[in-house]
Amino acid sequence: MITSLANPAVKRIRGLARRREREAAGLFFVEGIRLVAQAADLGAPIVEVVLAPDLLHSEFARGVADRLAAGGVPVLEVSGKVFAGLSAKEGPQGIGAVVRQQWMRLEDISLAGFLGWIALDAVADPGNLGTILRTSDAVGAGGVILLGHTTDPYDPTAVRASMGAIFAQRLVRSDAADLARWAKGQGATIVGTSDRATDDYRTVTYPEKLILLMGSERQGLTEGMPANLMVRIPMVGVSDSLNLAVATGVVLYEIFSRRHPPHIPS
Amino acid sequence: MITSLANPAVKRIRGLARRREREAAGLFFVEGIRLVAQAADLGAPIVEVVLAPDLLHSEFARGVADRLAAGGVPVLEVSGKVFAGLSAKEGPQGIGAVVRQQWMRLEDISLAGFLGWIALDAVADPGNLGTILRTSDAVGAGGVILLGHTTDPYDPTAVRASMGAIFAQRLVRSDAADLARWAKGQGATIVGTSDRATDDYRTVTYPEKLILLMGSERQGLTEGMPANLMVRIPMVGVSDSLNLAVATGVVLYEIFSRRHPPHIPS
Repeated sequence: MITSLANPAVKRIRGLARRREREAAGLFFVEGIRLVAQAADLGAPIVEVVLAPDLLHSEFARGVADRLAAGGVPVLEVSGKVFAGLSAKEGPQGIGAVVRQQWMRLEDISLAGFLGWIALDAVADPGNLGTILRTSDAVGAGGVILLGHTTDPYDPTAVRASMGAIFAQRLVRSDAADLARWAKGQGATIVGTSDRATDDYRTVTYPEKLILLMGSERQGLTEGMPANLMVRIPMVGVSDSLNLAVATGVVLYEIFSRRHPPHIPS
Repeated sequence: MITSLANPAVKRIRGLARRREREAAGLFFVEGIRLVAQAADLGAPIVEVVLAPDLLHSEFARGVADRLAAGGVPVLEVSGKVFAGLSAKEGPQGIGAVVRQQWMRLEDISLAGFLGWIALDAVADPGNLGTILRTSDAVGAGGVILLGHTTDPYDPTAVRASMGAIFAQRLVRSDAADLARWAKGQGATIVGTSDRATDDYRTVTYPEKLILLMGSERQGLTEGMPANLMVRIPMVGVSDSLNLAVATGVVLYEIFSRRHPPHIPS
């Protein structure tokens, strides 16, 4: 059992709190029973399990760790003190996992079988990004295409906000020009939202193949973003915009509702 | 000009970073040009303006401060260093305001003229609460009724997330029993959401007088919460819930859409 924060394996995991080290290693660290169990259930590429036996009081979590170990995943046992040093939580549960990041290329993703994809330009808030992954998963969209300088979907705040969707949704990094080219090649429509659009999001026809493109928290969609169809969410209050994750959710559920009309009880 | 963080007036304002002192004083502190201008425009009860002339480079903001001063609001001039000590921001803009909290009693609020009200049970995340205020404002709801132990709507994170709606929306503190009694007296329906409800939120008839009751981030609606009509948001992914602010937004926009059907271009 490792009892020192100076241990090289422990230092490597602690480094994953920083984006630069996450990206260099292509890894991220998740902690807590729920997240580790979800990662295991969803077949996420877990490269290492971290256990602190003095903290871990859940039979269920021990079972998850045992199954992963039986499947050949290395287990790092650490003291409670070391685990607390790895943890961003108060009252850490004593189980965590190092997971491989999974990025796809635009040319390798498919529009078939999904509600669509979500493209986010310059999203800055990891909580928003994680929340959008959660909603994207809930409506059956394929995943999120990140454009420009964005926050990291593997930031611990984004991972927590995704409530497990980080292990189920697909992630792509691209830019506006490549997205436009790819969408055109696929015969897909890029739907953007803006308070200056004339079409109400409730009145347009959403094509079968679509990418919902959302602008940044600060600026919304900027000039030059390649939307083919612009829609507006009506608002009657003091503000001319909604929170990014809420606006994304409202439009996604409208599209969901067209694809899956409700069963009206007779 | 005040140059010391030990100045009693400055210490009083710094104390407003803590919930207990905000509640004891019945005040909160907002900073930044946009928020102070919104507070002034929306007629919020500003009790003091705080200016740091060495930081404030905006003519517009100086005009806002001048108008407030002309209206009799005291202005506290502080050094840039002192303002930075009051500020939670990097690169503070040098303008802030101390604003009186406004709470209403359940018996003094009205259902007429609003889309409805939102009741939140045990909401824990100030970002969610502020985001819900923002959406509530956008759809024309009256405000938020806070039940049980909740986070503080005047927490700086909630204020920022509300994007000015904190100055336009109404706030009430109550509990489940009083809410049920009041709703009954008003002939209002309490609509709750749950993944175990049988009715799809898209298929029910929403009564004219309604309160949308949302559970906490962790637990959703618990037993004993007084909902008269339960609805379910369909989900097809790995999770059985949406982010609280997203779920609230999706249902609010459905209700909005019933009240304000879109104009379909002919």
